[in-house]
Amino acid sequence: MSKSIYFATSNLNKYREAENIIGKNRLKLLKKKLIEIKDYSLENIAIYSLKVLTESFNEAVFVEDSGLFISALSDFPGFATGYVHKTLGNKNILVLLEDEKDRSAYFKSVIAFKPPSKGPKLKLFVGTTNGVIVDKEKGTNGFDYDPIFQPSGSEKTFGEMTIEEKNKFSHRGKALQRFNSWLEEEYW
Amino acid sequence: MSKSIYFATSNLNKYREAENIIGKNRLKLLKKKLIEIKDYSLENIAIYSLKVLTESFNEAVFVEDSGLFISALSDFPGFATGYVHKTLGNKNILVLLEDEKDRSAYFKSVIAFKPPSKGPKLKLFVGTTNGVIVDKEKGTNGFDYDPIFQPSGSEKTFGEMTIEEKNKFSHRGKALQRFNSWLEEEYW
Repeated sequence: MSKSIYFATSNLNKYREAENIIGKNRLKLLKKKLIEIKDYSLENIAIYSLKVLTESFNEAVFVEDSGLFISALSDFPGFATGYVHKTLGNKNILVLLEDEKDRSAYFKSVIAFKPPSKGPKLKLFVGTTNGVIVDKEKGTNGFDYDPIFQPSGSEKTFGEMTIEEKNKFSHRGKALQRFNSWLEEEYW
Repeated sequence: MSKSIYFATSNLNKYREAENIIGKNRLKLLKKKLIEIKDYSLENIAIYSLKVLTESFNEAVFVEDSGLFISALSDFPGFATGYVHKTLGNKNILVLLEDEKDRSAYFKSVIAFKPPSKGPKLKLFVGTTNGVIVDKEKGTNGFDYDPIFQPSGSEKTFGEMTIEEKNKFSHRGKALQRFNSWLEEEYW
């Protein structure tokens, strides 16, 4: 099979996670800062980014948007997940949750894929992972919030996992697995 | 003069501040949730919102985007200013700045205006107000961060001011005044 698809992202960490599931031969990087809207729905954000992108790009391509939703903080940081990590950082998330008993949070990932113009329409794949915000940073793997998020059913934070381990638990891993199954069955 | 312009916003507090400067007879409300992008530049956000809006709206119209930039928090909350107030609220901003000596912050407002298609091109008007984040909420006027922001040169927070007082100090007041002067000289 020589068919391949593009992952449009400016985040090489995400690209490596996708490569691990979809396979190096089938994935191409379209390194690009996408137009992302402020919206409570990650689905709306991913769909909008993909629509703007495919106005001028006609290959098979997907985008991914993900967010962390912390229960005690009214689901903050949500759509501002990346930005909040760059500005406040994990340290300040821990400050905001000091003395907070409800540590529950979830990560959600939405993949929006569009085949070239003659193919089927836009498809969405979603993955969610419940867990807790731990009380101090653990591990140095992964990126962003990985050292403070521990998924349910694991004794490790994402920051303590290899890419392979993280992909089994993670929101993006789940969305990518669903996407990959669909590609295997319906697309390749 | 029967000429008038629309202010496209879903925020009636902002609309009242604009009415106070531009005048009730010349201003119309286009109550609308705009498409807003995630971008470090408020100018980019305002220009994008206005471009999308005027694809299907041909009257003279302006949008306004504003943000709070807190020095000790790497200019957080920036483009997420409204969202952060809805989720974290003033209480948590004060928690993040506990024991912080650098309380400096600024508010910035960007107005983007587009006359109907045959008029001049898009115009930008900017206003900035320096100040400090006080250590507890003061006053119940205004909205959002007004009770915790005290502009330089005042003993009161925005939350302790009337609309008229706030408009003299505020970022949006300054941008609106600049816009209004331009309207008087070049547009009406």
